Amino acid sequence: MNLESLAIKYHDGDLFVLDQQLLPQEEKWLQCDSIDDMCHMIKTLKVRGAPLIGIAAVLALMRYVTQGATIAQIKIAAQKLLQTRPTAVNLRNYLDVLLAQLTTHAEKVLEIGQTLFLEDVILCDKIVKNGATLIPANATLMTYCNSGGLATAGVGTALGVIKEAYRQQKVAHVYPCETRPLLQGGRLTAWELEKSQIPYTLICDNMAAMVMAQGKIDAILVGADRIAKNGDVANKIGTYSLAVLARHHHIPFYVVAPYTTLDKTCASGKEIVIELREADEIKSMMGVVKTPLATKVYNPSFDVTPCELITHYILDAGIFTPNTLSTVMV
Amino acid sequence: MNLESLAIKYHDGDLFVLDQQLLPQEEKWLQCDSIDDMCHMIKTLKVRGAPLIGIAAVLALMRYVTQGATIAQIKIAAQKLLQTRPTAVNLRNYLDVLLAQLTTHAEKVLEIGQTLFLEDVILCDKIVKNGATLIPANATLMTYCNSGGLATAGVGTALGVIKEAYRQQKVAHVYPCETRPLLQGGRLTAWELEKSQIPYTLICDNMAAMVMAQGKIDAILVGADRIAKNGDVANKIGTYSLAVLARHHHIPFYVVAPYTTLDKTCASGKEIVIELREADEIKSMMGVVKTPLATKVYNPSFDVTPCELITHYILDAGIFTPNTLSTVMV
Repeated sequence: MNLESLAIKYHDGDLFVLDQQLLPQEEKWLQCDSIDDMCHMIKTLKVRGAPLIGIAAVLALMRYVTQGATIAQIKIAAQKLLQTRPTAVNLRNYLDVLLAQLTTHAEKVLEIGQTLFLEDVILCDKIVKNGATLIPANATLMTYCNSGGLATAGVGTALGVIKEAYRQQKVAHVYPCETRPLLQGGRLTAWELEKSQIPYTLICDNMAAMVMAQGKIDAILVGADRIAKNGDVANKIGTYSLAVLARHHHIPFYVVAPYTTLDKTCASGKEIVIELREADEIKSMMGVVKTPLATKVYNPSFDVTPCELITHYILDAGIFTPNTLSTVMV
Repeated sequence: MNLESLAIKYHDGDLFVLDQQLLPQEEKWLQCDSIDDMCHMIKTLKVRGAPLIGIAAVLALMRYVTQGATIAQIKIAAQKLLQTRPTAVNLRNYLDVLLAQLTTHAEKVLEIGQTLFLEDVILCDKIVKNGATLIPANATLMTYCNSGGLATAGVGTALGVIKEAYRQQKVAHVYPCETRPLLQGGRLTAWELEKSQIPYTLICDNMAAMVMAQGKIDAILVGADRIAKNGDVANKIGTYSLAVLARHHHIPFYVVAPYTTLDKTCASGKEIVIELREADEIKSMMGVVKTPLATKVYNPSFDVTPCELITHYILDAGIFTPNTLSTVMV
């Protein structure tokens, strides 16, 4: 069985991950041999993006089964994978589906995994078709972090919509924000835009407001790591800032995600656990500390955007507002 | 004649500049031998901060006079210095004052320069006393870029107010934003806060909104590179973003500057020339390109905050609102 996307490959039990920490300078595929390998790769962001983290965990379990894992071992491994990163909910949703269906034979994981992978591809296709309808002609769009082919098994979510709208000749220009501290915008989104030959101009996150004030931006599209029942959205740190700035400048703010990002068990953003990461991500550049050595930092990896700042949710099931989102939360 | 501040020293014609690009890892003093030297140091941000740029230019002219420069040569040198950076107005204001008084003997530059240097020290003292009155007890403050002793001949402007309020035991904590792309917050403000033993937590610029939403911030203080007649403020890129976010979160937003930052000839922010800097400042880290090689960037060094987003202007002459600022613009 072969499953392939931009950043992950599963070939009859062999599993390879494109190291997203080395992009765009180096395109290096890492072999993933074990559950511990995958846990490490997820924690260190070699594999990242809410849908892809879930898919990668499932593929690691598929490999584990080809190595002879039992259902009991799969369950323990799933728990380990679940502990890697707390905020994105796709991982939990995928593992819940997998474990619920895993009743008699461990080999069933292979079938379930294939289905989930192929479903994510289809979800992305539906999302980008829905999203492209919201993009006006000759649009200049802003996006954040990376929500493209590197973040999903398919063509992506927010960046996928931009690519599809570009294919439909609606996109004049894109402003990706670099996304401190780990520069997923400057490294990964720029890499995807470059590959797709879409005209773009990279900016630092603190320049977004100025570009908005210049009247250049027709819409802002971002992905999501978790959408709470009330519509609050956890996404990469800085998303909330963009949403406030979008509101001030009267720019539509779109959250783009598959239904696997919805968390019906989470009433609102207040309940979402925000992952705090190492100080060194902010303090150091290329291994060199740039701040005073004793500097303390606050490094939340995500923030929560309240539903009232979101213009539309672009999902596989259609386009929703904060008021109509409840229809998919049942 | 000896004139000394945190980042510049003039000793009887010898001029030394603390290389602010190497801080905080290295405290290296560079000798400035010529007008070309100083132009290079200003362009490469080895010396930076709106008031300090003006003072540094004046000190370079003082050294030039001790080397035998004539009034005609001083005038040509002043033109060169004026071309180094277009946005901060203190440079132009200082050179205007100096050239206006320079009628008979070139040596007069020494007297004028000393007066301007010592005046900037006094202006900072007045500013920080005025500003401290606005800081409530047990305050948590946010600041941006660097507006401390490294940016002036004195104790600083916005960061100077924070230091004075801390001395008055009013400050519980400070959140400096790192200030991409050149990290003046993470490198320089953190260095000054560390030296002053003021408790602080460094954040990336894109985290400011989240920290504001958590209700942690009592006031935001920033410096200025130019204040237009209507009260619009040019300051380090990202300042406008913070001002919009402050308004959304109902947090007072204070612009702190000496009168030498006022530009009565500039009607509004629309007339302020915004310096665009090299792409490499954003694309590279420690000399290594982190984006695709072909990536184009937009790198404005400043943005303009409209007067209506500013709660108070803290000047040497007192505390003003956008409505009362016109009284100092005559």
